[in-house]
Amino acid sequence: MAKRINPHIDKIINQAKSKEYSAKEYAEQIINGNRNFLSKAISILESSKPADSELADDIVRLCLPYAGKSHRIGITGVPGVGKSTFIDTFADKLIQKGHNVAILAIDPSSSITGGSILGDKTRMEKLSGRNEAFVRPSPTAGTLGGVAAATRQTIILCEAAGFDNIIIETVGVGQSETAMASMVDVFVTLTVAGTGDDLQGIKRGIMELTDFLIFTKDDGDNSQRIYVAKKQFETALMMFPPKISQWYPKVMSVSALEDKGIDEVLTELDKFFALVRKNGFFEQNRKKQDIQWLNEQILFLLKEKFFADNDIKQEIQVIENQILSGNISPVSAAKNLVKKFFEK
Amino acid sequence: MAKRINPHIDKIINQAKSKEYSAKEYAEQIINGNRNFLSKAISILESSKPADSELADDIVRLCLPYAGKSHRIGITGVPGVGKSTFIDTFADKLIQKGHNVAILAIDPSSSITGGSILGDKTRMEKLSGRNEAFVRPSPTAGTLGGVAAATRQTIILCEAAGFDNIIIETVGVGQSETAMASMVDVFVTLTVAGTGDDLQGIKRGIMELTDFLIFTKDDGDNSQRIYVAKKQFETALMMFPPKISQWYPKVMSVSALEDKGIDEVLTELDKFFALVRKNGFFEQNRKKQDIQWLNEQILFLLKEKFFADNDIKQEIQVIENQILSGNISPVSAAKNLVKKFFEK
Repeated sequence: MAKRINPHIDKIINQAKSKEYSAKEYAEQIINGNRNFLSKAISILESSKPADSELADDIVRLCLPYAGKSHRIGITGVPGVGKSTFIDTFADKLIQKGHNVAILAIDPSSSITGGSILGDKTRMEKLSGRNEAFVRPSPTAGTLGGVAAATRQTIILCEAAGFDNIIIETVGVGQSETAMASMVDVFVTLTVAGTGDDLQGIKRGIMELTDFLIFTKDDGDNSQRIYVAKKQFETALMMFPPKISQWYPKVMSVSALEDKGIDEVLTELDKFFALVRKNGFFEQNRKKQDIQWLNEQILFLLKEKFFADNDIKQEIQVIENQILSGNISPVSAAKNLVKKFFEK
Repeated sequence: MAKRINPHIDKIINQAKSKEYSAKEYAEQIINGNRNFLSKAISILESSKPADSELADDIVRLCLPYAGKSHRIGITGVPGVGKSTFIDTFADKLIQKGHNVAILAIDPSSSITGGSILGDKTRMEKLSGRNEAFVRPSPTAGTLGGVAAATRQTIILCEAAGFDNIIIETVGVGQSETAMASMVDVFVTLTVAGTGDDLQGIKRGIMELTDFLIFTKDDGDNSQRIYVAKKQFETALMMFPPKISQWYPKVMSVSALEDKGIDEVLTELDKFFALVRKNGFFEQNRKKQDIQWLNEQILFLLKEKFFADNDIKQEIQVIENQILSGNISPVSAAKNLVKKFFEK
């Protein structure tokens, strides 16, 4: 191929392609409720290209003054619990009450499986095609730290775009529930009765986070089992110390099949928000989350920077072999590596 | 005070005080089984003085070729489960069989409470004063990362000193059980029946780590309840996927009061070690742990370095306020801080 006369031409063309609009244009369109721009901006957030990073930051910064006014609702539950069905019905009821609902996901496993939640939008029959709903699957690449950071910023953009209820969905993989807890106002756990899950108990860590424990599929033969399980969990929950929010975790049940229980969930959720807005927990919790996010992102970036270093990349292989042959302890090996990294 | 003629004299005196012996001398004495030197070396490991850091590294490095030959046994259980009593009897039996036992602890909460486990050595009646036992409480200062790193290196020194069974004890605070799991060969969970603990279930994460689930206080009225609970847990454990070690978690019970069950635990433990040594899991697991330790320590040190930086210390306060007033997003604030940190 002939050499170009102007070597900068490629760069200019690439810039024009990837940066069709300025951050200001993106932000203005998002704030006006433009779905296409919202979707594109989220893709920029999720991008791993360094050039996109600055643009993403600028868009988020410009949207920030318009954000924060939604209810951020976290919903977790193992696969098969009926999460999509619940969210479909739940969000539909919210829309009927005049709300706009954005549905996001944190699923670090999707980078391995190629997307396991929200991947199939057809499962949300009631929501698909509705203008008041915005469904965005989890990014299909990246570590939990990266995926969660993208979701966190997506919340801001969706709020700026006028969505007043943001639903964050996760499956209980690894630390994804903790990541979810760090960005929502209320934590909803979906569960089923009689699968052995109530015997082992839900993970204790999750029970401590949960504001609403909701049994799904409360219909037919299940209802009796759920009745018993609800009593058990109500007793179990009483053994936990009271929450800082002063909210007593609520055990409820729903049936999508019989259209049962969802209205009650909405009513209790209203009570929850009334309580935490009145006693100051709502504001206080968001501030705590912001500081927590600062610290987590710092760690994430430090780690990223360290392991992307070319010298470290080369050396770590040597060090690992030395550790495995018993010539150096992992603790002092780490000390040496970090020292060398900072001496450069 | 008059100015000293030789300004280096202070430094020399301090060196003589803090560094009475060389790393080589420490290592030699430890390998000879000298308890005093072992204790002093552990204190150097736990010290936060920069001068001690290098000495500690050198001691560990010199001891490494003599380490690794023990069984590392992790024991967890909530306060009140009877951990000290169990360990006292358990270690005593090991000693009767001709072993030497070191008992260490990971307790990050001790930096707050001033030491809650192993603090009271008098609770270990059988062990106190025995030459074959070495009991070392958890360091009473530092983060989990620091405390765990010290414990991890203490294992190496104890092994070099000839202890062929190392017991690591922890209470289930925060991530301390995960830290413990990353440094032991076998994971023992102590529990009691009929306190509501079996209703909620033991934390799922812990159940997945557990090789031995042991009910304590299997005497008097308790025995019937334990019988039922054991069956429940045996059923529950069958629902977990098989472990990489190919070991099926064992549900057992003991009574210190009636001197019941401990011999059986020892027998099963022998079976465990026979299995994992034969199928290669023992070696493979230790290698995995070493690499995990390298990565965790790198993160710990990066974080320490970052937050100790004076410019960062000053700036972080300003940034936090900007975040709280909604002027900047935590994600981009972190990006700016980390960028500045590395530009220096």
